[in-house]
Amino acid sequence: MTVYLVGAGPGDPGLITVRGLELVRSCDALVYDRLVSPELVAESPPDAIRIGRERLGQAEINELLVRLGRRGLEVVRLKGGDPFVFGRGGEEALAMAAAGVPFEIVPGVSSLSAVPASAGIPITHRGFSSQVTVVSGHDELELDFAALARAPGTLVLFMGLASLAGIADGLIHAGRPAATPAAVIASGTTADQRIVVARLADIAAAAGSIDPPALIVVGDVVALAGRLAAHEPVGAAAA
Amino acid sequence: MTVYLVGAGPGDPGLITVRGLELVRSCDALVYDRLVSPELVAESPPDAIRIGRERLGQAEINELLVRLGRRGLEVVRLKGGDPFVFGRGGEEALAMAAAGVPFEIVPGVSSLSAVPASAGIPITHRGFSSQVTVVSGHDELELDFAALARAPGTLVLFMGLASLAGIADGLIHAGRPAATPAAVIASGTTADQRIVVARLADIAAAAGSIDPPALIVVGDVVALAGRLAAHEPVGAAAA
Repeated sequence: MTVYLVGAGPGDPGLITVRGLELVRSCDALVYDRLVSPELVAESPPDAIRIGRERLGQAEINELLVRLGRRGLEVVRLKGGDPFVFGRGGEEALAMAAAGVPFEIVPGVSSLSAVPASAGIPITHRGFSSQVTVVSGHDELELDFAALARAPGTLVLFMGLASLAGIADGLIHAGRPAATPAAVIASGTTADQRIVVARLADIAAAAGSIDPPALIVVGDVVALAGRLAAHEPVGAAAA
Repeated sequence: MTVYLVGAGPGDPGLITVRGLELVRSCDALVYDRLVSPELVAESPPDAIRIGRERLGQAEINELLVRLGRRGLEVVRLKGGDPFVFGRGGEEALAMAAAGVPFEIVPGVSSLSAVPASAGIPITHRGFSSQVTVVSGHDELELDFAALARAPGTLVLFMGLASLAGIADGLIHAGRPAATPAAVIASGTTADQRIVVARLADIAAAAGSIDPPALIVVGDVVALAGRLAAHEPVGAAAA
């Protein structure tokens, strides 16, 4: 029995790892996040237990995984992106460790770079950015705008869409130029992908009523999007 | 004809994406980095052109990819990690765009999170770190130690092994506590993986003569390694 904490990747089902897909295909039980693509869920064996976590809190998920693991099952916990990049995989892993249930982390392609890539934006680029600062924008009150405005290179915010106007204002008031290129990429790498590019001062208005999930990218690398995005997008021909 | 810039993942060949492996298996030409695992190179068709980039500079690589693409071949440019996380994928993509050669970015699992994960370190973890700062440690003279020392959360340095002593000193002199947990993970996710954990003040001495490639992680999340690494490591049973 093992509980595998598997990263499903950013959305496009072709971007799961080979190892991750093998585990999904051979598991006894699959516990999956809302944002995991249905195509990947459908890859689990027909007789596998399949549980969407939609209505479960984190503590309930942890208990469920322990219970399934103790029944001797091969359990795949399929998480959007990478388990350890704002994925709460560490909490689930600690719960397994505390319960004595064997577990293994199987990393995934994080949205961090893959979603900007699908919009033609490299988060690092020689002469543009050799530093990336990654934060959760879930609670703008927790952000140190002074430090974030000073950080060189690229700023990537997860879960910041609801606070976008406040985040942009905060960065500008702390000294980040209003003309800094910014992008919002919603449902990145999927057929529903939407990309909005604007100056930092205008990005919240430009994003309008775009739906989550979305990643926010701030920095000069966003200016490369026009030169790199005119080609076939990431995953256009994915499995 | 298309040139696919494909991330091979962090080392373990099972951590390439499903889409990436499909492309390797069907390509006409494969141009691969030194750190890409031989198992992945061996997945290319027997009659494919295979070119290791070891002796080629970046400009030569760009020219080679354009030339192969213009011959009408399906070309896979297989890069360690993710093409856009210190992978110079943006430069190669711009060269294709300038030459009018169709290209596509296929993201990969970056070492950024996968390598710390293989050492039991989640780069984000509730209550420990909700921010990650990622920099190249290639040239310590380019680092703004004052800003890096003040950045909350986790600091991850790529290509910093040769400058490790200077980086640790710089961070401590700029105010990062000497007792901050730090880790060096060499050849992460492969059979040759080596992990060194120590206080920031001692990490350079502890790492000793460890060989590159290595990732450096600084921050409280490193303290979780002891609780999470006692289990089967990432990729232990990879394809």
